[in-house]
Amino acid sequence: MQEFAKMSASELKALESDLMKRYEEFKSKNLKLDMSRGKPCKEQLELSMEMFNVLKSSEDYITSDNVDTRNYGGVDGIAEAKELFANMLGVSTKEIIVGGNSSLNMMYDTILRALVLGVPDSEKPWGALPKVKFLCPSPGYDRHFAICEDLGIEMITIPMKSDGPDMDLVEELVSNDESIKGMWNVPKYSNPDGITYSDSVVDRLAKMKTKAPDFRIFWDNAYAVHHLYDEHDNLKDILAACKNAGNPNRVFIFASTSKISFPGAGVAMCAASEENINFIKKHMSFQTIGPDKINQLRHVRFFKSVDGIEQHMKKHAEILRPKFETVLGILDNELSGKGIAWWNKPRGGYFISLNTMEGCAKAVVSMAAEAGVKLTNAGATFPYGKDPLDRNIRIAPSFPPLSELKQAIELVCICVQLVSIRALLK
Amino acid sequence: MQEFAKMSASELKALESDLMKRYEEFKSKNLKLDMSRGKPCKEQLELSMEMFNVLKSSEDYITSDNVDTRNYGGVDGIAEAKELFANMLGVSTKEIIVGGNSSLNMMYDTILRALVLGVPDSEKPWGALPKVKFLCPSPGYDRHFAICEDLGIEMITIPMKSDGPDMDLVEELVSNDESIKGMWNVPKYSNPDGITYSDSVVDRLAKMKTKAPDFRIFWDNAYAVHHLYDEHDNLKDILAACKNAGNPNRVFIFASTSKISFPGAGVAMCAASEENINFIKKHMSFQTIGPDKINQLRHVRFFKSVDGIEQHMKKHAEILRPKFETVLGILDNELSGKGIAWWNKPRGGYFISLNTMEGCAKAVVSMAAEAGVKLTNAGATFPYGKDPLDRNIRIAPSFPPLSELKQAIELVCICVQLVSIRALLK
Repeated sequence: MQEFAKMSASELKALESDLMKRYEEFKSKNLKLDMSRGKPCKEQLELSMEMFNVLKSSEDYITSDNVDTRNYGGVDGIAEAKELFANMLGVSTKEIIVGGNSSLNMMYDTILRALVLGVPDSEKPWGALPKVKFLCPSPGYDRHFAICEDLGIEMITIPMKSDGPDMDLVEELVSNDESIKGMWNVPKYSNPDGITYSDSVVDRLAKMKTKAPDFRIFWDNAYAVHHLYDEHDNLKDILAACKNAGNPNRVFIFASTSKISFPGAGVAMCAASEENINFIKKHMSFQTIGPDKINQLRHVRFFKSVDGIEQHMKKHAEILRPKFETVLGILDNELSGKGIAWWNKPRGGYFISLNTMEGCAKAVVSMAAEAGVKLTNAGATFPYGKDPLDRNIRIAPSFPPLSELKQAIELVCICVQLVSIRALLK
Repeated sequence: MQEFAKMSASELKALESDLMKRYEEFKSKNLKLDMSRGKPCKEQLELSMEMFNVLKSSEDYITSDNVDTRNYGGVDGIAEAKELFANMLGVSTKEIIVGGNSSLNMMYDTILRALVLGVPDSEKPWGALPKVKFLCPSPGYDRHFAICEDLGIEMITIPMKSDGPDMDLVEELVSNDESIKGMWNVPKYSNPDGITYSDSVVDRLAKMKTKAPDFRIFWDNAYAVHHLYDEHDNLKDILAACKNAGNPNRVFIFASTSKISFPGAGVAMCAASEENINFIKKHMSFQTIGPDKINQLRHVRFFKSVDGIEQHMKKHAEILRPKFETVLGILDNELSGKGIAWWNKPRGGYFISLNTMEGCAKAVVSMAAEAGVKLTNAGATFPYGKDPLDRNIRIAPSFPPLSELKQAIELVCICVQLVSIRALLK
C-alpha cells in the first residue's frame, strides 16, 4: 500500500476514477443498510428467550424472602436482584439500586434530581447556580451529551487518550472551577473508542481535588461484561478507589442488562456509596412505589449467578466477534498503510471508532448515506454534535447481518478513500 | 341507637367499660392486620396470570406494525398499546404516551421536568420562580402531597365537597395568584372519598381563568374503570372540556393498569393535548430510549380491547365488592345513629373514607395500632400530613382476607366509640 499523501496528483486522480466506479456500482444496488446504533441483532435477542419460561406457577412469582413480585413495593428492587447485580459490579447490596429497564433513565433522573435537590455534599441544588458544567471525554456517547444539552448543562470536551481521558487537563479544570459538577465516563470498552481506563486514570479520578464539594463522576459501565474475547480488559474498581481516597460519594456507577438480556426489557442499576444510595432511595420513594419486580425476578432466575451472566455473554461474543473481525478485516484491506485513517481494535463493547484525516468525517458519512449506508452522524460523538477536527466516525457492527455488514463497510472504505483524495487534491 | 352526645356521663362511662372489655379481648389475640394501603389482594393478582402466556414464539414479540418489542426504540410506547389505552381514556393516539409500570413516576417526572424546563406556555421554568404552589383537594392521595413536599412545592388545602373540590375557592385562588401552577385531582372514585367530580366541576376547572398562563391540572384517573357495581359513576371528559374552553394544554391525565393487571408490573400512561405530549416526548427522548415494550405487548394481547378491560374489571369487582360491603355493614351496625362518625359509600375505587368527631382520628389510629390493626396514618390524606380537623381515616379494604377484614374493622369501630366517649367526657 502506498501512502496517499506521497502519491502524485495524477496517480490520485486515476485512483479516484477507479473508486468512483465502485461507488456508483454500489449506489445502483439501492441498498438500505443501517450501522448507526449499537443495537443487538435478532440472534442475540434469541439467546435470552428462555427467560420468559422461568416463572410458571403463581408461587414462582414470590422471592426467596417472600415478596410477591406482582404486587406493590420495593422501591430499590428485590433483594435477589440486588445481590446478583451487586456481585456483578463488585459492590455491597447496600450500595445498589436495581430499577426499571433503562440505565439512561437513571442517569437522566440523577442529574434532574441534582438540579432540583442537589446531591449529598451540595450546598444548594445545582439548578440554583448560575452555571453548571460537565466534563465530556470525547469521542464519547452521544446520549450522554444530549442529556446535558436538554438540561442546559455546559459541556467541556476532554480529549481521550489511549488509556482514558487526558487526566492532566481534567485535574487542572476540576481543581479551579467550582461550576464543574460532573463528568461523563464510559470507562470500559468505551463508546466509541473501545478503550478501558487504566488503573492510574481510575486512581487519579478518585483522588483529584475538586473545587466543587459535590462533584460527581457518572460512571456508565455499560459494557462491564461485554467481552469479545476470553482475554479481556479489566477495569479498576472506582468505588473502592474513591473510598480509599477519602471521596466515597464521588461516583455514581450505572449499568444494565440491555445488551445482556433485552434492550427493550432489561434491568438497570445504579451503584454508589451508601450515603448516595440512601439519598436517591429517599427521593425515589416519592417518585415511584417500585420498579417492575417480576422482570427483575425473571433475570435472577434465568442468570442465577455472575458466572451465569459470564457464560451467557460468551454466547453474545460468538455472534459479535465475527462481525467485529469482518469490519476490522475490511478496514485493514482497504485502508491500512494509506495514511488516511486510523481505527481501534476493541476487545469488547459495541463500537469501532474510525478516524479519518482532519475535515473528512462529515463528507464520508454523507457520501455513504447517499449510497444507502446509514452511519451515526459525524460529530455525534462530541459535545453539541461538533467534532472539532471532523474526523471521528462511529461504526456499530452488531445489528446488520454479516453479508450486509460486509457491503456497508466496504462502501465506507470507498468513501473514506474518495473523500481523502479530494482533500489531498485541493 | 342513641346519639352519644345525648347520653349522660354515667351512661357513657358504662358503655366505655363494655367497649374496653371488647378492646382488651381483641388486643389479647395479638393480631397483625394491615389496612393501610390500597393494595390488591392475592386473588386479584391471579386474575391476570394468563398474561404471561400470551407471548410464546419469537414472532409473538413483534407488533402488528413490525416492531421487535425486545429491542431498543419507541420512546412513547408501541402503537398497539397507544391505541388500546387511548380508547380506554377517550383520547386520540397522538394525545397519549404509554410508559413503564408507574403512573406516579410519570407524575413526579412531569413536575420535576416543569421545575427545570417549564411546560408549554411557561415564561420560565417553574424552579426559577421564588415560589410554586399547588392546590390540593383534601382529603386526597398522600403520595401526591408527598411529591410536593419532596420538591419544595407549597400546598394549599382545598376542601372536598360531595361533587368534587370547592370550586368557588379554587376559582378565586387561581385567578389571583400566579404562583399557583398546578392542582392535584383524583377525579373518579376519589382517594379516599370515593367521590366522582360532577360535570359542572369538570367544566369549571376547564374554563376558569388562571393568573398563571402555564397552570396545569394533574388529573390522576387512577380508578377510571374500577367500578364495584354495574351501575357506575361517569366522569366528564376533561381534555375535551379544556379544548372547548380554549385551554387545550391545561390538563395532564394519568392512569395505569396497576390495579387492572399487576401493581408491580403494569403499564402507565399520560394523556394530554398534542402540544403537551410532543413537549414531553421531546424531553423523554433524552431520558430514555424507550419503556418495556414487551410488557406493553403482553397487556395488549391479553386485554385485546377496552371491552376486554371492562370484562376483566368485573372480575376484580366480584372480589372487592364483598370486602367493601363487609366494611360498610360493620360500620353501619357499630356506628350509625350515634352521631360520632360519617362515611362514604363508594361505587368504585379502593377506599372508604371514615370521618370521626373533630380531634379524634389520630387517637383512633393509634389505639387500633396498639391492638394490632395498622391503618393509614391519620392526617396522611391532607397536605403535610396534617388534617386540620383531625377526623379523617382512610380505610383500604382490598388487601386483607375477608375474615381478617371483619376483625380489623370491628376493632376500628370499637376504637372510634372509645375515643369519642373520652372526648365527650372531657
